[in-house]
Amino acid sequence: MNNIQEFSKEIKKGNKRFIAKAITLIENEDKQATELINSLYEFCGNAKTIGITGPPGAGKSTLVGELVKHIRSLDKTCGLILVDPSSPFTGGAILGDRIRMPELTNDSGVFIRSMGTRGSLGGLAKATRDSVKILDASGYDYVIIETVGIGQAETDIVQTADAVVVVSVPGLGDHIQTLKAGIMEIADLFVVNKADKDGAPKTARELRLMIEMSNYAVEERPPVLLTDALSGTGIPELFTKIEAFIENNLKSGKFESRRKEQLLFEIQDILDYNVKKYIKTKIDKDFYKSKVEEIFNRETTPYVVTEELFNILLNKGE
Amino acid sequence: MNNIQEFSKEIKKGNKRFIAKAITLIENEDKQATELINSLYEFCGNAKTIGITGPPGAGKSTLVGELVKHIRSLDKTCGLILVDPSSPFTGGAILGDRIRMPELTNDSGVFIRSMGTRGSLGGLAKATRDSVKILDASGYDYVIIETVGIGQAETDIVQTADAVVVVSVPGLGDHIQTLKAGIMEIADLFVVNKADKDGAPKTARELRLMIEMSNYAVEERPPVLLTDALSGTGIPELFTKIEAFIENNLKSGKFESRRKEQLLFEIQDILDYNVKKYIKTKIDKDFYKSKVEEIFNRETTPYVVTEELFNILLNKGE
Repeated sequence: MNNIQEFSKEIKKGNKRFIAKAITLIENEDKQATELINSLYEFCGNAKTIGITGPPGAGKSTLVGELVKHIRSLDKTCGLILVDPSSPFTGGAILGDRIRMPELTNDSGVFIRSMGTRGSLGGLAKATRDSVKILDASGYDYVIIETVGIGQAETDIVQTADAVVVVSVPGLGDHIQTLKAGIMEIADLFVVNKADKDGAPKTARELRLMIEMSNYAVEERPPVLLTDALSGTGIPELFTKIEAFIENNLKSGKFESRRKEQLLFEIQDILDYNVKKYIKTKIDKDFYKSKVEEIFNRETTPYVVTEELFNILLNKGE
Repeated sequence: MNNIQEFSKEIKKGNKRFIAKAITLIENEDKQATELINSLYEFCGNAKTIGITGPPGAGKSTLVGELVKHIRSLDKTCGLILVDPSSPFTGGAILGDRIRMPELTNDSGVFIRSMGTRGSLGGLAKATRDSVKILDASGYDYVIIETVGIGQAETDIVQTADAVVVVSVPGLGDHIQTLKAGIMEIADLFVVNKADKDGAPKTARELRLMIEMSNYAVEERPPVLLTDALSGTGIPELFTKIEAFIENNLKSGKFESRRKEQLLFEIQDILDYNVKKYIKTKIDKDFYKSKVEEIFNRETTPYVVTEELFNILLNKGE
């Protein structure tokens, strides 16, 4: 208890060693992590969060690096969480934070952390959200969440941000079509990176066309920006647009309603997670096994069994 | 009740109109669907199921069409379920079954059905599994499940099959890398389609190399086949390999253990689904809303609230 208070204090001071420790506790699903978050929660809510996603090869890493540098040049601090859900089977490779952005890791106003695939309970979005809270309570002005890939897992993760940037590049072929399916709807801003490449204006045009054909109100259509992260071109403009988006939302009340929607999603997600954990403790493996045998032998059916299990969970029946 | 028995009888006879009706009930999450499955379940388990997945543009539709024709030429019957989870937001477009395979839809030994995105509870895998049961009980020798895309949702769906074929094509660029992340592990057979294209042998080589570097026991390495679905080249060989894979598994006992694993997954999935539904009825929206307000105002935290909600679910506390 005392320990937790000590811990919170160090985090509020921005002590990086303790921030790192806290995130490790979160990753390990340690009970202390929850206590810590409960004790820090009243100091959260000030950081602006930016989600950045897009397919592999879009140059997101470089873009994010440049964005962080730009934020630093404005004398603001920035936390950065790199999430790679990749394979649910292999654990996924994580790029070393230090190797990736050497000039940033020694900057006291920057904190960088990678997160990989968590257990099968699907705790990665939860772990990311909680890590954002730690960075938020530590006083970082901005927290950037970068995800690799554009699947459902990544979508869930970046959607926790105040502004979502979807990064695209020229010439990924079927890519625009892939974007359509699922990610269009979560983008607040589109970036076509590698703008020096031949196809860049075409890709931007295609994106704009796609946006026009979608269900956005005209004034809510996400802007499409061109950047060349390698040379830094377009990065200040991108940041200005992100800021403008958040400012507008703050004025219109959308910022607040969006955060509330995210909170609703969060509590439902945690609840779901807790229930799954509860099920694991309540119904043991052998019981499942014997039921599977019965179903396999057609002595019962999956639906009869699940009703039985459901009643056990709620302590109904025997 | 009588109704259900009548219904089951028609399905066991293979009456297509009733099969279609049953699948619609399943899609609508009608209670009758569960009753129907319970009553038919003892007649399930005979159909061999084949899952086919791969990225858009790999020519899966043509390949599946040819595979069905080949199965028919062997005097076997085949049910086909085309699943398109695409966007969780827009509902996703479904290709008309009839438009797609005109020569097959009039064949009495073939049943084709498309399934699109279901509600946010994630019922698509469930609906697919249950539709397979209906086709199985109807006496189809084979049921093919085809999914579009290679995300987690698709992976979950095709994993319900006795044999999983992952279709690839030459020259999708980053595609091999995408395959690596998540889908490698579920493939029992790889197909490089559009084998007439220049890059086909190279893609096949890359796949084989990837397989060699993975954790497969040598005798379990999935074969890599070349097909050209448009001309029908390689389709009989593909079917032979699928059959051989299933036959081997039957002999070794893997067929049975795999089906049991799938059953375990299924009951856990249904249980999860039922719990989510229960939560929806037990905790009303207004309650969530008021809790979100409290969290937003930092009067409480997401974790305190979810513990409260959890206790309500289990009827603990007040």
